[in-house]
Amino acid sequence: MARWEPGARERLVVAAVDLFTEQGYDATTVAEIAERAGVTRSTFFRHFADKREVLVAGQETLSRLLAEGIAEAPADATVLEAVAAGLERAAAAMGPANRELGPRIKAAVAASTELQERDALKSVGLAAAMTAALLARDVPGPTAHLAAELGVLAFKQGYAQWSEANDSAPGTLAQHSLTALEDFRKATTTLS
Amino acid sequence: MARWEPGARERLVVAAVDLFTEQGYDATTVAEIAERAGVTRSTFFRHFADKREVLVAGQETLSRLLAEGIAEAPADATVLEAVAAGLERAAAAMGPANRELGPRIKAAVAASTELQERDALKSVGLAAAMTAALLARDVPGPTAHLAAELGVLAFKQGYAQWSEANDSAPGTLAQHSLTALEDFRKATTTLS
Repeated sequence: MARWEPGARERLVVAAVDLFTEQGYDATTVAEIAERAGVTRSTFFRHFADKREVLVAGQETLSRLLAEGIAEAPADATVLEAVAAGLERAAAAMGPANRELGPRIKAAVAASTELQERDALKSVGLAAAMTAALLARDVPGPTAHLAAELGVLAFKQGYAQWSEANDSAPGTLAQHSLTALEDFRKATTTLS
Repeated sequence: MARWEPGARERLVVAAVDLFTEQGYDATTVAEIAERAGVTRSTFFRHFADKREVLVAGQETLSRLLAEGIAEAPADATVLEAVAAGLERAAAAMGPANRELGPRIKAAVAASTELQERDALKSVGLAAAMTAALLARDVPGPTAHLAAELGVLAFKQGYAQWSEANDSAPGTLAQHSLTALEDFRKATTTLS
């Protein structure tokens, strides 16, 4: 397997996540992040407005991709087929940098209430983006909300499994996410 | 209808939420909250460790009640019947103070990213508490996660409707929450 060679942006994200884990979000400065990544402060500011933005930037892209995938699903797609299209669109944009970051972000979030709050709001944002895209397809409100929550659960679970996967248990992010979505769909039949 | 007479704790929560809305969470001090509530700083500290705790305290109680209701549901209850029992237990503990606070908290949260993050983490915490209680009933993982998310959606929607209800559209918090849960249950049949 060819080694993945990260660019400055990816190195900044990795450095930030590692520093947040080691010494906390509050205690970490932009200068430290830049130094760890081997770039200058001005390079940091070409990529991100501040340290918070390091965590937020990916979320906006992800929300947009999820919504686009849902919007462009065939008109006769079922609600969950549209959600699956969103997950596939988002998954296609994720590369080795995202996969390598998974366990690091998990560790950083586990160590910081502030990052837990940020992470929780990220999930709410992703669900809101998917809900809006489903409502735009004339999906009724409760169904749209429910399907969006399933989509978030499936994407998070798929991402965790993809990040932790090894060569004996491979699979793409899309495959892991769609398998998780199908598991949650089956679970809907066991509620009552 | 008899006027509700809040005690010091409730007045502190109302004062804090109002000040967070008016001037932001960061800019609000414990001294200001105490003054607005008409109590001393030492009274504040008898009820809460810090201003953040004002927002968090209710969440821990809520998580405990939801979990207890689920744990004590009859052994032959379906998954959603157990969730409904959790919602009923939590709703029974909510009084006029909680109802009056609903629209104020909503306004405060809308005005502050920091409070949005806190609110999002609260939802995650409630879902985690319900998931754990369902897993303890031997509900399979995906079903437990899904049912807990439905429970959170239903409780939040029920709470919003209860807070905004007027005399021409009455109903208890439990009624609003269980109606919302049933709406989401019906929505599970329209996903695919």
